[in-house]
Order: sequence, then structure tokens, then C-alpha cells
Amino acid sequence: MTYCLAIQLDQGLVFCSDSRTNAGPDRVSTYSKMHRFSVPGERQLVMLAAGNLATTQAVMATLERDIKEGAELNLHTPDYVSDIADYVGELSVKTQQKYADSGPESGFNAEATFILGGQIKGQEQELYLIYAEGNHITISGQFPYLQIGETKYGKPILDRIIRPDTNLETAMRCALVSMDSTMRSNATVGPPIELLYCPKDLMEKSGNYRKFAENDEYLLKLREAWDVNIHKAFNDLPELEEL
Amino acid sequence: MTYCLAIQLDQGLVFCSDSRTNAGPDRVSTYSKMHRFSVPGERQLVMLAAGNLATTQAVMATLERDIKEGAELNLHTPDYVSDIADYVGELSVKTQQKYADSGPESGFNAEATFILGGQIKGQEQELYLIYAEGNHITISGQFPYLQIGETKYGKPILDRIIRPDTNLETAMRCALVSMDSTMRSNATVGPPIELLYCPKDLMEKSGNYRKFAENDEYLLKLREAWDVNIHKAFNDLPELEEL
Repeated sequence: MTYCLAIQLDQGLVFCSDSRTNAGPDRVSTYSKMHRFSVPGERQLVMLAAGNLATTQAVMATLERDIKEGAELNLHTPDYVSDIADYVGELSVKTQQKYADSGPESGFNAEATFILGGQIKGQEQELYLIYAEGNHITISGQFPYLQIGETKYGKPILDRIIRPDTNLETAMRCALVSMDSTMRSNATVGPPIELLYCPKDLMEKSGNYRKFAENDEYLLKLREAWDVNIHKAFNDLPELEEL
Repeated sequence: MTYCLAIQLDQGLVFCSDSRTNAGPDRVSTYSKMHRFSVPGERQLVMLAAGNLATTQAVMATLERDIKEGAELNLHTPDYVSDIADYVGELSVKTQQKYADSGPESGFNAEATFILGGQIKGQEQELYLIYAEGNHITISGQFPYLQIGETKYGKPILDRIIRPDTNLETAMRCALVSMDSTMRSNATVGPPIELLYCPKDLMEKSGNYRKFAENDEYLLKLREAWDVNIHKAFNDLPELEEL
């Protein structure tokens, strides 16, 4: 499993992803699920991937190869991020179909989902969730975030804190809390955690990036403080009288 | 969907359930998912049900009828709650199989899961989760609770607060917070909320019970306080420096 999320703030895009992959309890490994395809000064593009690792790797490899070989349609050619979402969706479906019926194992699932966000010069920033079926949705105005993978444990805190005008530090801290709650409740989501911020209209580089290892000092401090603060939040609730 | 949970404390059993059922967005209704089959002085038995409503209603109706007709095996005959869990599991599988292949609609799912808890005179209290396949598990020593239905949103707070020696008021309040978080994040879980406490070794009546309507004063106070306290818990976290 995996947990990735992205937030579209008024001031820019925030991306956060874990790095644990597993194909059964004996095949636990670490891969980055955050992929950057930016062209400085021209386009910012970030993808997060969840689902079958062979599918997501094949899609990423094809995206790279299409750029390298100068295919008519590649990540550098469309004028809108939504057209890139269509292109990624088509590649994803094609890859899944190739393997969908070929596995001898029951329970095999080639599905993959992606988050794609970024900006093309002259356009606004855009953010999409690309389903396994290849179609995509963007954020809602009130709750400007998207999630893929193991999404439920980390959703309540996003619903409470994240709004379009939330400031950057708060949004990034909230993404880390959401990620930490998920890691606590699900053993198949794990560090290192990657966090990336792409400011609006600033495409000179591919964003501000940080990778948090398992023993990262800030991450440990955050986790401990959150545990203490949640206990306090709970203990301060009005007491229930007898039934 | 549904959300039900039960907690086995050193001092007794706590049960909590929502009441919303839905078969598509046009068929939203309200049914109790908490069923009591106690015999004062002799046995305490409580069941919570999630899944296909036709399956759970058919299972409950058969349980009632087996008691009424004095079947050789009914809820009043076994000497152990675990044997009752086997009996419920068998009934559930039989009911599901009857309808599993008969629906013309794709996506039809006759599955149901149950929580069964209680005490038979001379034995300890027991608590089981009965899977759709009819088999069952009991609680772990460290995290003495079980959940069925829409379980993920409400799990983190249970993991943080509930232990075997947690006091009754704290456990019941935590069950309500877990339920409230789930209602907030999933529209198919809704009030009234039922809460029941069965003290250990006290089988003279079927437990202390309260039903919380949507506008229940305590529930509204709890929800508001939790929202305020969570925001405070989040705002008091150490700030993240620049990436």
C-alpha cells in the first residue's frame, strides 16, 4: 500500500508521499513515489503514484522514454495539465490491460492511481487525481486536496485544517500529521516521507523539497507532540453522565 | 454503510452503533443495528450488525425464531459465547449463499459481519467479530476493541485511548468521538447513535442503554469541543522550518 496526498493552496501546490512498497509481507521495500518532470521556466510537473508497482514503474518509464525520443505527445508538448492527465490515464490503462488477465495468481491486481499537479507557463496551477480507469477529477473548492492509496486514516485532519487560503507552513505540517496518522494505523505505509512545495508562477526550479527519514528529528518531535496534544484534546472533552 | 464498535474493558463491555442504512443514495433509512438477546440472571448477549441489510435482518429473524420454536441450538442453549459465534457464523453464511448468485444486478453483495459480545453465567465476558465467511476472532490483549463497517476513520483515536484498564466513562466517550469522526468523514454513517454498557458479572438486566438523537445536547457539545480541541492540538505542534 501507499499514501500520497497533494494540496492546492492559493499560494502554491504541496505534495507529500511515503516510500513503502509491499507485495506480500516478505517483499517490503522502499521506492520513491514522487516523480518530477519540470522544465525550468516553462513547466512544473509532479506526479505521485499508488497501486501496482510494476504498473506505476512501466508508466513512469514510458513517460521518460516518450520525452527522450521526442514522441509527438510527451510531457513537454501539451498546453494544459489536464491534457497531460488524459495522456497519463491512457498510458496507465494500456499498461494495466496488458497484464490484467495474464497472472496465474488469484487476487492479482494491476491497478494504479496517480496524482498529477503542476503549471504550464501562461496557465494557472492545476491538480488532478487520475483513476485506474484513466479518467480524472480535480479538487473541490472547499476541500482543496486529493489523496491516493491508504486515504482514510489521514483524511479527518485534512478536512478540519486545509482550506484554499491556509498558509504554507500549516498545510505542510498538516500533510505530515496526516501521513503520520496513516503510518501509525497501517503498517504498509512507511518512511522516508517526501515533501515538495511548488510556489505559484515560480517555475525557475522544480520546487522546494525535503526528504524525512524514519528518525528525522522534526518528524519525531511532531509525532510525540501530536500524541500528547491529542490526549489532552480528548481529556478536555465534556464528561458523559451515566447512561 | 455502517459503523459499529465494541470494547472489552476489565470492568465490562461497551457497545456503540450508528443507525443509517443505504442501498444507493435514494434508499437511505434508519434501522437499529444493536440487538439484545439477554436472559436476566442467566446470560447477557448483544449483537451489532453491518453489511447487507437483507442478510442481517434474515439472520436476526432466524435467531429469534429459533428461540421461539425451542430449536435444539438457539441463543439460549450454548454454554459458551464462542459456540454462539459459531452458530451465528453458520446462519450468516447460509443466508448469504442463498442470495449470492441470484441478483440480476452487478455489484450485488450479500455479505454481512457481526460483533457478538456477552457473558454466560459462570463464565467470563467474551467478545467476537464474526466475518462474512462465518469464522471469528476475539480482541487482542493490548487493543481490546473490535469494529465492523466503516472502520478506518474512527480507529486512530481508539488506538490512542483504549486499553483494558481504561475507565468506563473514558471508554464510552472515546466510542462517541470515534463514531463522530466517522460520521463527519462518511455520509453513509449517521444518527441516532446507540450506546450500551454491560457490567461484568451483573446480568440482572440487559445493560445500561442510551440512544443519542442527531440533536442530542451532549453529542453536539462533544462534537463542538472536539473540533475546537483538535484545532488547538494541531496549532500547538512544533512549526516546520522551510524546506
